[in-house]
Amino acid sequence: MFIAMNRFSVDPEQGHVFESVWRERESYLADLDGFVQFALLKGDDPGVYISHTTWETRNDFESWTQSEHFKNAHRQAGPATGVILGHPEVSYYEAILVESAESVVS
Amino acid sequence: MFIAMNRFSVDPEQGHVFESVWRERESYLADLDGFVQFALLKGDDPGVYISHTTWETRNDFESWTQSEHFKNAHRQAGPATGVILGHPEVSYYEAILVESAESVVS
Repeated sequence: MFIAMNRFSVDPEQGHVFESVWRERESYLADLDGFVQFALLKGDDPGVYISHTTWETRNDFESWTQSEHFKNAHRQAGPATGVILGHPEVSYYEAILVESAESVVS
Repeated sequence: MFIAMNRFSVDPEQGHVFESVWRERESYLADLDGFVQFALLKGDDPGVYISHTTWETRNDFESWTQSEHFKNAHRQAGPATGVILGHPEVSYYEAILVESAESVVS
């Protein structure tokens, strides 16, 4: 399991604008090989959001970033630009232990 | 969906020790109400790890933190203390959009 997170600092008074842009976008993710889940997370700290995408493998994620789907999805991000403070911070993680409600995988 | 993350900075040369402690612990999570998934994530940045726990609701998470299961699980963390640099950073997130390979939930 591979997780890509992109952390945004948003003007706390403009959070609803940022959320709307995400709600209205077409993600093009659901049909991609190795895609598991996307979530837009809202932090307890004011104005903190994370775009949180889970893939079966890092290779699946990298294939997506090189696809037309990726370019199309990111072309829609324009309207959110004015409410984001600073640069988003990207970070990548490999799951080395996973334990779920149904099963244990190590 | 609620996600609790605890971010650890570990001496990069001691990462294998830190991982062993997590592999060998008893988590007591699988049977708890609202528990969805636990993952130990290893970041691309050297020495960065995140304990990443997903719950159906914040309330399910809070019930766990007040339980004997939580105390038992954290009693086992002692052996990792020497390899962790600084204090772990806890952060909490509510998912405001979720899209999975099988279905779309908003």
